[in-house]
Amino acid sequence: MNKHFLSKRHVEFRDTDMAGIVHFSVFFTYMEQAEHELLRSVGMSVVHEIDGQKISWPRVAAECNYLRAIKFEQIITVQVSILRIGDKSVTYRFRFFESEQEIANGKITAVCCYFVHGSRPISVVIPDSVRSLLHEYLE
Amino acid sequence: MNKHFLSKRHVEFRDTDMAGIVHFSVFFTYMEQAEHELLRSVGMSVVHEIDGQKISWPRVAAECNYLRAIKFEQIITVQVSILRIGDKSVTYRFRFFESEQEIANGKITAVCCYFVHGSRPISVVIPDSVRSLLHEYLE
Amino acid sequence: MNKHFLSKRHVEFRDTDMAGIVHFSVFFTYMEQAEHELLRSVGMSVVHEIDGQKISWPRVAAECNYLRAIKFEQIITVQVSILRIGDKSVTYRFRFFESEQEIANGKITAVCCYFVHGSRPISVVIPDSVRSLLHEYLE
Amino acid sequence: MNKHFLSKRHVEFRDTDMAGIVHFSVFFTYMEQAEHELLRSVGMSVVHEIDGQKISWPRVAAECNYLRAIKFEQIITVQVSILRIGDKSVTYRFRFFESEQEIANGKITAVCCYFVHGSRPISVVIPDSVRSLLHEYLE
Repeated sequence: MNKHFLSKRHVEFRDTDMAGIVHFSVFFTYMEQAEHELLRSVGMSVVHEIDGQKISWPRVAAECNYLRAIKFEQIITVQVSILRIGDKSVTYRFRFFESEQEIANGKITAVCCYFVHGSRPISVVIPDSVRSLLHEYLE
Repeated sequence: MNKHFLSKRHVEFRDTDMAGIVHFSVFFTYMEQAEHELLRSVGMSVVHEIDGQKISWPRVAAECNYLRAIKFEQIITVQVSILRIGDKSVTYRFRFFESEQEIANGKITAVCCYFVHGSRPISVVIPDSVRSLLHEYLE
Repeated sequence: MNKHFLSKRHVEFRDTDMAGIVHFSVFFTYMEQAEHELLRSVGMSVVHEIDGQKISWPRVAAECNYLRAIKFEQIITVQVSILRIGDKSVTYRFRFFESEQEIANGKITAVCCYFVHGSRPISVVIPDSVRSLLHEYLE
Repeated sequence: MNKHFLSKRHVEFRDTDMAGIVHFSVFFTYMEQAEHELLRSVGMSVVHEIDGQKISWPRVAAECNYLRAIKFEQIITVQVSILRIGDKSVTYRFRFFESEQEIANGKITAVCCYFVHGSRPISVVIPDSVRSLLHEYLE
């Protein structure tokens, strides 16, 4: 069964460009904000501490397909689900709707990493506690 | 033969996030800015008039793969080429380098459209004059 | 009596910079979003039609004072009031709070303008219907 | 004598909004980018190390006055000078020009701070070596 997380938002003025529509790059911050809401909804944060280790999720891939333009003050719903939980990475799927019509869809793949201040992030196997929390939204 | 356009830039402070690196969404505006530079280099603009008709290029797809993080004040080179010129669309390919190392790569597909104020953009066959200008950067 | 409008929000990841705090420029979009919420709350929009004329509110001045830094996922309250309604302009005052502590405050002055497509905006006397709606939030 | 630093730039597509002009918040990142260019021109960076101490410059105030709208692909010149060097703070003045016409002007006041990872920045007296470098652009 396909469980997903829903996030609702207004299109803000600054999200638009001179073409009068939401700029294509803004959909990526919309996706990220919906992902972070999902994480908060299961009691996590994108910057999280587990056993005294700071973990976060740098992105390795992101993509978006644009079906229809949206405009200032339109209300959009972002539907988030998890397409895949790998050993070290998670792929989120996003679908954007305005009044029931799909306007865009996309994916983000993020890698679970330990962060030590001043050094490069080190990818690690997703801790079981995190895995089981994310499992709720696995397609 | 593979001809490409090169664009060079500094990473700005606002391009970074609390992880200390360039935010993944920023690569999409980097791509767009390099695309617009390429268009200017052949005498066009992304908002262009041909035979009294305003044409522009809404995006239908965008993607990016992230290989290495980059930081404030690093200098990056964006290499742009054209992967495909279709009847109505163009797919650009972008590769990002910092000190010879590839840090990311991506694609944007844009559709040639007529813009009439107040109505929806209408996709049109790419005018021959535009096609031949873009041809210079076709892979 | 001092009536004000309240807007609540999360700090988003993209709002931060490499210093780990919200970038100073972001407070201006926070102010604008709170202003637009206030306008919606009285049945207006920042892009509004009155008697078949499109009016909007270009800015002539904006300022912000920063008292304390704020971080990702902190919840901030933006308090908006109107400092002055002139013949043609409105000055909004904004105060930002996090857990009762003031973190920043600022002002935006916007001018009422008619927009005709393709020409420069023309400043006009604020229509009475608009003036009386805004009056509710006048300090 | 009034010495100033000059920075030139294109207006990018993402800098615009649905009103077809540069969004008012973007002027603040333009100011910051010109400030950082000025710092680089005298051999500094906004994130700088002196005697093993990391110093940076959080903002305490920022303001902008808007005189004329600017549009996509217009070329603007930002003129930066230093209005005041205090014990611990610097106030920069910015003037924006397009084809000789002033389009906006603004100020940013930044405070010299030591950054220790994980703690609050501590304001400090501007080191003499920094003060003398900045002095070159003092009005």
